[in-house]
Amino acid sequence: MENQLLPDERIDFLVHPELKIIQSPSVFSFSLDAVLLSRFAWVPIQKGKIIDLCSGNGAVALLLSKRSKAHITGVEIQERLHSMAKRSVVLNDLSQQIQMDLSDIKDAPAHYGYGTFDALTCNPPYFASVHDEDHNQNEHLAIARHEIHCSLEDVIRVSSQLVKQGGKVAMVHRPNRLMEILAFMRQYKLEPKKLQLIYPKSGSEANMLLIEGMKHGKPDLHILPPLTVYDDKGEYTAALKRMFYGEQ
Amino acid sequence: MENQLLPDERIDFLVHPELKIIQSPSVFSFSLDAVLLSRFAWVPIQKGKIIDLCSGNGAVALLLSKRSKAHITGVEIQERLHSMAKRSVVLNDLSQQIQMDLSDIKDAPAHYGYGTFDALTCNPPYFASVHDEDHNQNEHLAIARHEIHCSLEDVIRVSSQLVKQGGKVAMVHRPNRLMEILAFMRQYKLEPKKLQLIYPKSGSEANMLLIEGMKHGKPDLHILPPLTVYDDKGEYTAALKRMFYGEQ
Repeated sequence: MENQLLPDERIDFLVHPELKIIQSPSVFSFSLDAVLLSRFAWVPIQKGKIIDLCSGNGAVALLLSKRSKAHITGVEIQERLHSMAKRSVVLNDLSQQIQMDLSDIKDAPAHYGYGTFDALTCNPPYFASVHDEDHNQNEHLAIARHEIHCSLEDVIRVSSQLVKQGGKVAMVHRPNRLMEILAFMRQYKLEPKKLQLIYPKSGSEANMLLIEGMKHGKPDLHILPPLTVYDDKGEYTAALKRMFYGEQ
Repeated sequence: MENQLLPDERIDFLVHPELKIIQSPSVFSFSLDAVLLSRFAWVPIQKGKIIDLCSGNGAVALLLSKRSKAHITGVEIQERLHSMAKRSVVLNDLSQQIQMDLSDIKDAPAHYGYGTFDALTCNPPYFASVHDEDHNQNEHLAIARHEIHCSLEDVIRVSSQLVKQGGKVAMVHRPNRLMEILAFMRQYKLEPKKLQLIYPKSGSEANMLLIEGMKHGKPDLHILPPLTVYDDKGEYTAALKRMFYGEQ
């Protein structure tokens, strides 16, 4: 019963040959952002605790389970998305490793404890919540994409509170928010260590960034090789395919 | 007499077919950094005032003269480098457009006036001046490369003071200083608008960055397409050659 699909839902493959994910085109589907974040983030391999904030339908948490044996907690505020994530965990037989919680990330430090996690990932809403008319008409998508329930500052403050000294916080976001991200990371003692820029095609400006900071880390930022998504024919580049399917 | 070469000096071509530059391998030679900065920076085309700080032997100022009719002031603290720059200006018959001044950039706002320039470029010393033993043995190179006479904060504070409201400040630096650069730019009201990362070869971390801010600008950062310098054969990439020689 747990895995019964609602009318608009379907089961898709999730990049890794052994992973499947429940999603709904009209409610929420995982995107490239989630896949890239799950590859970019540092994770403890054998043991430890990982938390994924703004989990959506659980793509990042599911993908991280293929890179780490650590326990993974996913936090999502939307009941419908949480329900999909929870059923996907069962579908993949990952209930021992992944726990999906329905809650507001702002309550997470009080709930899980300060300094609890070794690593944290987050694919937060990208757009500042300024004007109501700008919001996506679909409420589920609006909450996932706009800072309705949590601001960028909330995400970074809470992330810093949740990880241990030396713990890592990895996030995917838009380049035009980089200055805010760096300012909040500095304010909340997450020192940026790794930055990677994603370009939709050759000759275009970056449209996505991956950034990882260390709680109370020393300043030493590395800018990883750029990743271009599509080649001139509109197909995935070899580099992107390697990130997706191989050599991981 | 002005153009007489000292024993260790020579005249080299400076990228542009019409430009020559006096340099000395044992004292100072222009580098890729200067060329990239001179291409990256916004300049007023027909009129206005440009200033180039930490001018070295004048490569940036000379190259900017091919993109702009504005008056260009170059400021260099080392007498020997300033002498080369001055003689190169004469050699290229650019004395009407370019003025090379021997002085400390920290004195520049008082000397030229606050809010005087439309655009500013700077290829500052890259390395923090911490331990004397780390300094290059050659005094000229040491001053050019280490923050002996001016710190990164000096450079950014002075830059902000020299440009008008809405004026542009472009700098070339190392990626591991990005966090400091952004923090000082924010502190001194230079809003980052354009960032470009330079990678030595495919698959390598970035080893150079170009950044441009606008005095009292609104937050809106664009991350330009990445530039890779060498191909797998160790030769300049087509993109770099285009930047060097064509389509400008």
